Amino acid sequence: MKLERLVGDRFKERPSDCVIDSHALMLRGGYMKYVANGIFSSYMPLRRITRKIENIIREEMDRIDGQEVQFPVVLPASLWDESGRYESVGSELMRFSDRNNSPLVLGMTHEEAAVQLVREYGQSYTKYPFMIYQVQTKFRDEARPRGGLIRVREFTMKDAYSFHTSQEDLEAYYARCFHAYERIFARAGIPDTVSVMSDSGMMGGSVSHEYMLLTPVGEDSIAICPECGWRANMEAAESIIENVKDAEDLPLTPVHTPNQQTIEEVCTFLNLPVEKSCKAVVYQKNMTDEYVVLFIRGDLEANETKLTNFLGEAIHPAVITPESGIVAGYIGPCGLPKGVTVLFDSSLKGTNNLCCGATKEEYHNTGFCIERDCPDAEYHDFAKITEGGICPRCRKPVITVSRGIEVGNIFQLGTKYTKSMGMQYLDQEGKLQYPIMGCYGIGVGRLAASVCEAKHDDYGPIWPMSIAPWQVHLCCMRADNAEVHAYADSLYEALLDKGVEVIYDDRSVSAGVMFSDADLLGVPVRVVCSPRNMKDGCIELSTRDKSFSAKVPVAEAVERIVALRDELLAACKAE
Amino acid sequence: MKLERLVGDRFKERPSDCVIDSHALMLRGGYMKYVANGIFSSYMPLRRITRKIENIIREEMDRIDGQEVQFPVVLPASLWDESGRYESVGSELMRFSDRNNSPLVLGMTHEEAAVQLVREYGQSYTKYPFMIYQVQTKFRDEARPRGGLIRVREFTMKDAYSFHTSQEDLEAYYARCFHAYERIFARAGIPDTVSVMSDSGMMGGSVSHEYMLLTPVGEDSIAICPECGWRANMEAAESIIENVKDAEDLPLTPVHTPNQQTIEEVCTFLNLPVEKSCKAVVYQKNMTDEYVVLFIRGDLEANETKLTNFLGEAIHPAVITPESGIVAGYIGPCGLPKGVTVLFDSSLKGTNNLCCGATKEEYHNTGFCIERDCPDAEYHDFAKITEGGICPRCRKPVITVSRGIEVGNIFQLGTKYTKSMGMQYLDQEGKLQYPIMGCYGIGVGRLAASVCEAKHDDYGPIWPMSIAPWQVHLCCMRADNAEVHAYADSLYEALLDKGVEVIYDDRSVSAGVMFSDADLLGVPVRVVCSPRNMKDGCIELSTRDKSFSAKVPVAEAVERIVALRDELLAACKAE
Repeated sequence: MKLERLVGDRFKERPSDCVIDSHALMLRGGYMKYVANGIFSSYMPLRRITRKIENIIREEMDRIDGQEVQFPVVLPASLWDESGRYESVGSELMRFSDRNNSPLVLGMTHEEAAVQLVREYGQSYTKYPFMIYQVQTKFRDEARPRGGLIRVREFTMKDAYSFHTSQEDLEAYYARCFHAYERIFARAGIPDTVSVMSDSGMMGGSVSHEYMLLTPVGEDSIAICPECGWRANMEAAESIIENVKDAEDLPLTPVHTPNQQTIEEVCTFLNLPVEKSCKAVVYQKNMTDEYVVLFIRGDLEANETKLTNFLGEAIHPAVITPESGIVAGYIGPCGLPKGVTVLFDSSLKGTNNLCCGATKEEYHNTGFCIERDCPDAEYHDFAKITEGGICPRCRKPVITVSRGIEVGNIFQLGTKYTKSMGMQYLDQEGKLQYPIMGCYGIGVGRLAASVCEAKHDDYGPIWPMSIAPWQVHLCCMRADNAEVHAYADSLYEALLDKGVEVIYDDRSVSAGVMFSDADLLGVPVRVVCSPRNMKDGCIELSTRDKSFSAKVPVAEAVERIVALRDELLAACKAE
Repeated sequence: MKLERLVGDRFKERPSDCVIDSHALMLRGGYMKYVANGIFSSYMPLRRITRKIENIIREEMDRIDGQEVQFPVVLPASLWDESGRYESVGSELMRFSDRNNSPLVLGMTHEEAAVQLVREYGQSYTKYPFMIYQVQTKFRDEARPRGGLIRVREFTMKDAYSFHTSQEDLEAYYARCFHAYERIFARAGIPDTVSVMSDSGMMGGSVSHEYMLLTPVGEDSIAICPECGWRANMEAAESIIENVKDAEDLPLTPVHTPNQQTIEEVCTFLNLPVEKSCKAVVYQKNMTDEYVVLFIRGDLEANETKLTNFLGEAIHPAVITPESGIVAGYIGPCGLPKGVTVLFDSSLKGTNNLCCGATKEEYHNTGFCIERDCPDAEYHDFAKITEGGICPRCRKPVITVSRGIEVGNIFQLGTKYTKSMGMQYLDQEGKLQYPIMGCYGIGVGRLAASVCEAKHDDYGPIWPMSIAPWQVHLCCMRADNAEVHAYADSLYEALLDKGVEVIYDDRSVSAGVMFSDADLLGVPVRVVCSPRNMKDGCIELSTRDKSFSAKVPVAEAVERIVALRDELLAACKAE
């Protein structure tokens, strides 16, 4: 491919609306173009990258006995009705109607379509286990698309669905898929991707993992124990708090606290550490607007995912009206109006002598002893884990919190979909059973952007050889020099003959333009032919990551370039 | 791949709702499954076929300097507003709104997206020509999906867009693409696909061609001249009529024709050949319900596409109300109410002494001489070409009409999109110009179904080696025979080692089931290991099309199978 003919513009200035580097570089390098909020077109370099990623994924899915199928992008609403998700999923599910007023949706994930495809096939235990997957366009009407390809509305995803006759079989397959994912990320050039326990969210099921590329620009928070290696998404990480009780319970005493509304203000006012307070966090249920009040130790934050999972429905931060009977700023565990759901976080267990709201304007209580004052309280884990918190596995107080981009996820779904959609098989004893499912996703575009995020410098991406748009970037400096140009042409042809993917820049442009374009395209091997090198009978061979640079005699050029390509390709192998 | 593990059911009975063989066979063979009207999921065998087709298309598009890109499935309505098609395209364009009430559409074709992608890139003449293409899911809300994958609502399509600075350059590229298409169809195993001139329809532009697979089940009609090779879609085929006038004009004479309403009834009643009549065909404009009356020679039919193109708007067969002032059954060219658009087909030119409606209940006229009675008539071509009609190129009256499936199309679009969307470049003289576009489509699923339609027998598809789901179907008869099974296993492994794509059936099923399944999968090379053959130290090697069958000694098996595979692959080469 001649660079001169490559469709797409490359430019120097970082677009002002780009928050993360991969987004800026992929716009600057002519990889993609904005079409609408969270919707992009890809130019050739990105399409070549995503095709290579897709093929790596396909190879690894085939290795674990996956069968590639294809589900539709547009699905009848009736399918999502069967599983109950037509109702339960929010407005990220794109709903519309066709010319005959039949309701349709755009597939954002394909559990329903997978069950529909194999419902008749899987009627006997002899057909199990099996896994089907697809690489397909999906659409999710995200409220806040951002970060270029990191969070979009339309995206290409590999989604896989496995079906089993026992939990043990699912777990065994889950482990195989876990390993396949490690291979995929290693082959795509980001072997340091980590798996973390995650929340299953709207997918249902119990055990699930996310694969995270740790990076400060990631939008997920991950709790990591440096001691024992335990890792979990903040949304799913259990918060463990050990309280030390004061020796003596003080009496519950109202204190006038005018204008002290936040728990920090109150603690300062009362000269108490914030850990000695009981904070109220108020939500409303999305469907009914009913109030939910969570009490939690004052230094901790509520984890909305845990709350949603516990309640089994969606919530939002409350708007407290005068009619609600809730005394904003002074909410305490006693005297809340009827109809309010009251929850207690485990962090309050075994506390005494806290301050808390008195459920009365301008008053707080001190000496709140939860076991004495709320003897019926049940405690659940609703808190966010914190930096320095206790590791749920090894119990050491050493948790660190990092940020990461989720590049893949795997879920043990159980029978949520097979039960709701009436998929059954006859087991060996002739009894009807529901198959157990797993599902496994990787976003192709997000993976490309994540690799860019992990592998770039100020001048452009540094693509791993396995997914680079081309393998060798050949620069002919001073294309007006007939000898240099003729040699570069011949080298181009010789490399193509060897099956090397070459992008060839023989434009009459300055060295500055030529090199900055090459940096933006991020091709791992660079070859420069120039009058000066020609004089020495050499070319200049280097790598995009600057780890290698050498003058190579013309006679050895092809051989050395191919060897370097092969070496860099081998570096992207999985174990 | 072991057949035992292949997800999907195969069955004997032709589904009652299948009109064409490819539809029935692809359901019976476990290729696809109905999800909703015109929406299907693909099982592994079909996905393997479509991926091979996609790769053939990609190779041929790359050969003519195409650059693979990707446009979104979901597009902002604003893009389609720019070209005017948000208004002009009917309800086959799927329109809906996102959570922020921004109007969106599902891409059914991507001219707008293509222009949007390259509008800034193509600002200088030096960037031209270039071609970009994608392979992507599309959605068209068809009123009547039918024929399995032949006419669906959701489909995968390769669509390509080329940009040029002159009509000559477009035509030169159009010719290259024309040839690339011939190569694609040849490589996919249907080299006898023919190109025909076509109507450009909603795409705009002038010259366009369709590639047709001629088959009686096709939904398109194609006029062919067996003398000179001229071919055109009926929609676009010029109808040429040469009338011989009677020597003498008779006077216009009203005749009482009670209960004679169709032109055939009237001609029989008056004892006139139907060619000696002037028939009225009545339409209404879709937007305004205004009447359009076409007069045409009584033996011919109106071509609605030509009418639509002439009027520049959509029409439908009229509902004639009493208020309209139109006398249904007795409509003549004189005395029609004001506001009715009156058109004359070229077939009436130079006629005399016809019968026609008298615009009066129960009366027709005889002796209608159009030049005398309608001196202001303008004639245009609105008629369907007929079997035995005159060839527009060689003028011989030998036209035949065949049916075909459209498997691809190419259009010279001109500046319709670049003008409406404001894409311009500076030419060599520094003047602003609009680039000239071409576009080129192939439906991947439809091509797969068309190949099946062209290549099958009563028992299943006969896939060409180039796109077959697997290359070799290995049958182990009597899998309970340890010797046979062990040999078949070893042959399976040996073939995989040679890079042969094998589907291996070692199930404990009858020979009947084994062979009918093999027929339904349509794999071109079949190998049978059986106790009887084993005794002779042989395998049975045959082709799915029954043209070859031989016993081959075990020692030569791998070599002979690979050779047969290679031979059949070579048969799918393009010139």
